[in-house]
Amino acid sequence: MFKINENYLKLPGSYLFSTIAKKVNAYSEANPDADIIRLGIGDVTLPLADAVIKRMHEAVDEMADKSTFKGYAPDLGYLFLRETIVENDFKARGCDISVDEIFISDGAKSDSGNIGDIFDVDNKIAVTDPVYPVYVDTNAMAGRTGVYNPDTEMWSNVIYMPCVKENNFIPEFPKETPDIIYLCFPNNPTGTTIPKDNLQEWVDYALKNKAVIIYDAAYEAYISSENVVHSIYECEGAKECAIEIRSFSKNAGFTGTRLGYTVVPKDLKCNGTSLNSLWARRHGTKFNGAPYIIQAAGAAVYSEEGKKQTREQIAYYMNNASIIREGLKNAGYEVFGGVDAPYIWLKTPDKMTSWDFFDYLLEELNIVGTPGSGFGPSGEGYFRLTAFGSLENTKRAVDRIVNK
Amino acid sequence: MFKINENYLKLPGSYLFSTIAKKVNAYSEANPDADIIRLGIGDVTLPLADAVIKRMHEAVDEMADKSTFKGYAPDLGYLFLRETIVENDFKARGCDISVDEIFISDGAKSDSGNIGDIFDVDNKIAVTDPVYPVYVDTNAMAGRTGVYNPDTEMWSNVIYMPCVKENNFIPEFPKETPDIIYLCFPNNPTGTTIPKDNLQEWVDYALKNKAVIIYDAAYEAYISSENVVHSIYECEGAKECAIEIRSFSKNAGFTGTRLGYTVVPKDLKCNGTSLNSLWARRHGTKFNGAPYIIQAAGAAVYSEEGKKQTREQIAYYMNNASIIREGLKNAGYEVFGGVDAPYIWLKTPDKMTSWDFFDYLLEELNIVGTPGSGFGPSGEGYFRLTAFGSLENTKRAVDRIVNK
Repeated sequence: MFKINENYLKLPGSYLFSTIAKKVNAYSEANPDADIIRLGIGDVTLPLADAVIKRMHEAVDEMADKSTFKGYAPDLGYLFLRETIVENDFKARGCDISVDEIFISDGAKSDSGNIGDIFDVDNKIAVTDPVYPVYVDTNAMAGRTGVYNPDTEMWSNVIYMPCVKENNFIPEFPKETPDIIYLCFPNNPTGTTIPKDNLQEWVDYALKNKAVIIYDAAYEAYISSENVVHSIYECEGAKECAIEIRSFSKNAGFTGTRLGYTVVPKDLKCNGTSLNSLWARRHGTKFNGAPYIIQAAGAAVYSEEGKKQTREQIAYYMNNASIIREGLKNAGYEVFGGVDAPYIWLKTPDKMTSWDFFDYLLEELNIVGTPGSGFGPSGEGYFRLTAFGSLENTKRAVDRIVNK
Repeated sequence: MFKINENYLKLPGSYLFSTIAKKVNAYSEANPDADIIRLGIGDVTLPLADAVIKRMHEAVDEMADKSTFKGYAPDLGYLFLRETIVENDFKARGCDISVDEIFISDGAKSDSGNIGDIFDVDNKIAVTDPVYPVYVDTNAMAGRTGVYNPDTEMWSNVIYMPCVKENNFIPEFPKETPDIIYLCFPNNPTGTTIPKDNLQEWVDYALKNKAVIIYDAAYEAYISSENVVHSIYECEGAKECAIEIRSFSKNAGFTGTRLGYTVVPKDLKCNGTSLNSLWARRHGTKFNGAPYIIQAAGAAVYSEEGKKQTREQIAYYMNNASIIREGLKNAGYEVFGGVDAPYIWLKTPDKMTSWDFFDYLLEELNIVGTPGSGFGPSGEGYFRLTAFGSLENTKRAVDRIVNK
C-alpha cells in the first residue's frame, strides 16, 4: 500500500495570501461599491520593457522557422544568457563567477524551494523572522522542521532569528549553530537591508561553522544605498559557503514571465563533493530548462535599452515607495524599508495587532496590505505595504491614511 | 556542519545522452567530413504551428500593455487553458476530470520528477524495463531505490518489469507488490503500446493492492490504433489509483517552449487524504506557474487551426516512423513500435550488443541512434531510432542501412 509524505500534513492549513484574499472578497461582497486599493501581494503592475517585448517577438519568430527553431535547451540554460549574467551581475561588481556556476531556472520561488533537494534531511535550518514563507514551508515538506506549534506559530526544529526594529532588522548569530542559513537582502517582507560589513560577518560565521548560506537576492535591483552589496559574492569567502538565488520577477517585471537563476559556486564543497555537481544533476534530471523565448527575453533585460527601461520601472516603483514612506512618516507612523526595496514595513499604531490593523485598513480605508504576523511571530505588530501599485493608487492610498 | 543528500552520490556517473554526445563528438573530430544523421535524442525539429506562433505574438503584446499585462498566474494555471484541456483531452474521451484536477506545469520531465515529493520515502517503486531514466533517477535522489549495482545496472530496491518482444512489451504483474507503479504508454523508448484491456488489468491490480500508478501519456497524440487509450482515465476506476502526466513537447513541438500538465484526481486518496490537495500544496509552494505567454500558446494548440496544424506535424513524424519501420523490416531487421509512437525499437542484428550496434551505425553509416541498454538491462540487444528528423534525413538514413 502506498504511503504519502506525512510531512505535508504538518503544514498549517491556511496560506497567508489565501486568508487575505478571502477576507477581501468577503468585504467586497458585503460592500460592492467600496473602492479597494491593493497594496498587498508583491506582484508588479507595469508592462514589460519595450526591449524585452521586441526580443520576445523576434524569438517567437525564430520558433516559427525550421532553421532557427529551438528544441531542448542546454541543461544549465543558454550560454548567451549565462554569459551576459556573468558579465553584468558579477564581473561588473568584481565577483569571480563563471558561466558553469549559473543555473537558469523558471524563477526564484522554484529554486528556493528545490534547493533543499541536494541537502540531507538531517540539517538544521535558520531563518530570519519575519520571513518569506517558502523557505520554511519547503523545509517542512522535506521533514526538516520538526513539529509545528500553532500557538507560537513556530516549528520545533527551526532556528528563528528575530529581525525587529531593536536590532535594525539585522539577524544576530543564534545560540544554536545552524547548518543551513536562509538570508534575503534587501529583505522581503521588511524592505530593510544589511550593511556589507554585517553580511561579511555572516559569511565568516558560515565558514567557521561549516554552514551554508542560501542567499536570496531577488530585490538587489532596488538597492540605492552605498555599502549594501548586490551579490553575496562581493563578500570575501562567500564562494565557499553561499548559494545565491536571483530573480527577474522584480528587477524586470517577470512575475508572470518566469525566469530566475541560481549560483552554485564550484568552491562550495561538503567533504570534497562540490554542490555545483549536485545541483547540476538535480537541474538536469528534474527540470528541462526555461523556454527559449523567455531566456531570450531575459538576455534583453541586460541590453543597453533593456537596462535603461527596467531602471525606469524600478524608479517608478521606488517613487511609490518614497510616497508611502514619507506620507506615513509625516502622519506619525514608524516606518522602515522602502529605500532599497519596494516594501514598506510599518509599526502598527496604538499597539494594534497586525491583523487588527489589516481589518482597520480594509474596513475603514479600503486599503489591502499584509499583516506582518503572517511572515512569522516577530512580524507581529508590523505591517507590509508594497510599492508595486500605480502611482495614482499609491497616492490615493496614502492620502486616505494621512487624512484619517 | 551542513550535510548533503548522500543519495545523489549513489547515482551512476554518466548520463546516457552525455555518453552518446561524447562518442559522437569524438567521431566527428576524427572525421570532420562525415555526414552524420542524428536519430538519437527525442527532440522535435519542425517549427511551432502557425496558430501557436500567432497566439504567442498576441500574448507578448498583452504583456506590453498595462491594461492586459499579466503578473503571477493562478496556482493551478490559467482557467482558459485548464478548461480547454478538460474539454478536449478528457470530456471528448468520456473521462470525467474537472478543472481543479488539472495542474499546469513547465513540462512532463519536471512533473514526473517532482511528483515523488508527495510520497513517503518508504514506498517501493516498480518500473518497466527499459524505461525513461527520469523515473528511476529521481526516486534514487529521494532515497527510495536502495543501492545501485553497476554490474547488473539495477537498483536493489526497485521492481523491474521487463518489457521485451517475448511479452509484446507489456509488463507482467511483478512477484513483489509495488506501492508506486510507473507506466508510460505509448512507450518511450520502445514505441509500443498497451491494449486497453491490459491497462484496465493494471488499474484493477493497483486498486486491489492500493498502489498508485504514475501514468506518463506524453506520446498519446501519436496513437493511431484502435483499442489503445489516450488517457488512463478511460479505464474504470483509474481516478482512484492513477496520476496522469501530459506534455506539449511531442504533441505540439514544445520541447523548447516548455508546457505540460498533471492530473491528480480528487478521488485518489490515502487514508482519507486526497493527493490532489498535497499536489496543490506542492505546486503552490515550490512553483510559480508556467509563463502566461506559454499557457496562451498551449491553449492555441486546442484551437481548430492549432489542432489541424499539430496533427499535420504528427503525421509528418509518423511518416518518418513508417519509412524507418518498413525500410528496416524489408532489410531484414526485427522492428517494433513506430505505429502509435515516434520511436522505432529494433532488435540488434547478429546478437550484437546495443553499444556495438551504436558504434557500427556511427562509424560505418554515420547514423546516431540510442542503445537500448541505456534505458535499462532489458533494453540490451535493442536499439532506438526516432522519427523526429527531417523527411530527407530519415530517408537517407534508411537508405544507408538498407543498402549496406
